[in-house]
Amino acid sequence: MSDQTASRPRRGPYAKSARRQAEIVASAASVFSARGYRGGSLREIAKQLDLSLTAVVHHFPSKSDLLVAVLESADSAHADSFQTDRRNEGVAYAVLQFVRRNIDRPEMLRLLALMAAESSASDHPAHEWFRRRYELTIATLADDIRQDQEQGRISNPRDPYSIAESLVAVWDGLQLQWLIDPNRDLVAAMTAALKDLLEP
Amino acid sequence: MSDQTASRPRRGPYAKSARRQAEIVASAASVFSARGYRGGSLREIAKQLDLSLTAVVHHFPSKSDLLVAVLESADSAHADSFQTDRRNEGVAYAVLQFVRRNIDRPEMLRLLALMAAESSASDHPAHEWFRRRYELTIATLADDIRQDQEQGRISNPRDPYSIAESLVAVWDGLQLQWLIDPNRDLVAAMTAALKDLLEP
Repeated sequence: MSDQTASRPRRGPYAKSARRQAEIVASAASVFSARGYRGGSLREIAKQLDLSLTAVVHHFPSKSDLLVAVLESADSAHADSFQTDRRNEGVAYAVLQFVRRNIDRPEMLRLLALMAAESSASDHPAHEWFRRRYELTIATLADDIRQDQEQGRISNPRDPYSIAESLVAVWDGLQLQWLIDPNRDLVAAMTAALKDLLEP
Repeated sequence: MSDQTASRPRRGPYAKSARRQAEIVASAASVFSARGYRGGSLREIAKQLDLSLTAVVHHFPSKSDLLVAVLESADSAHADSFQTDRRNEGVAYAVLQFVRRNIDRPEMLRLLALMAAESSASDHPAHEWFRRRYELTIATLADDIRQDQEQGRISNPRDPYSIAESLVAVWDGLQLQWLIDPNRDLVAAMTAALKDLLEP
């Protein structure tokens, strides 16, 4: 996302290198998802792609560099749509649309849930990434909620930061319930939770 | 919990065997917590206790038997106090007391969070255990909430099952936020979430 050139079509060796990087990130996502970060190895990620370990290390010098690339890729999907939806229709609508889009990628949600739980140990290489991710997500959402309160879109008058913490929490928790039991209706559960949290 | 004799003081070989089992469960909890279930091995669990692999397998024939024992032990702590608090003071009070008691055992909460995320893969040995745990927890809590609604302790008139799903979710999610960043005030966040969910 920070690479301005990422969205331009690429040709030649650069395009090939970007494609290779994306393949390595996808392979790492599937390995970390199956074995956890600590159980996964660069060797296995390379093997899945029929690459040498050296070829992987050329793109990602360490396993933790690769983990951060995987997390950035999983986390950034649909982020722009969320902001557009939020501006146009408010937080409740944007969150529900986000949940609807995410239902198509349970493996990515599973990976994020697993990495978040693993990373709660303070010596985990993604510990700081998740700490800052929650800090930033909650602070941004609190601002969005404050604006919705001012515009009369959210009738709950309580502290926007607390509401944002609860909203992020209920979202993580309902996703976990649904990942464990896909027969649950995640959209219906999230709709009910949003009513309780935002429209008392 | 299902062993009626478990609370009686034991002497002789039985006491020794029960103590040994409890030691193995504690060692397994620390190994699974550090490496995940898949990354942990019976060999490492035995080594931590200076036991042979055969001695561990004598008590727990397989790694998944041991995992279930670890989960039962982590999950059953404080369960009786919760039911007493709930009957006497209602769901909101019981949940807050439960959270306060759990703050002293972050390692157990970390383990449960990690195992829940891992177990969302349908081939994980704890998959069915977690699916039923959520099913049962939410159904029981929905009954409790219905009773609190009837007794006027909970003013939110919406569907008790949906409220129970949201409450379990917000609880998992706030715990995760606090495990990742212990500077967060889990009790304050849970108090605010309970207000929003139960007392609109």
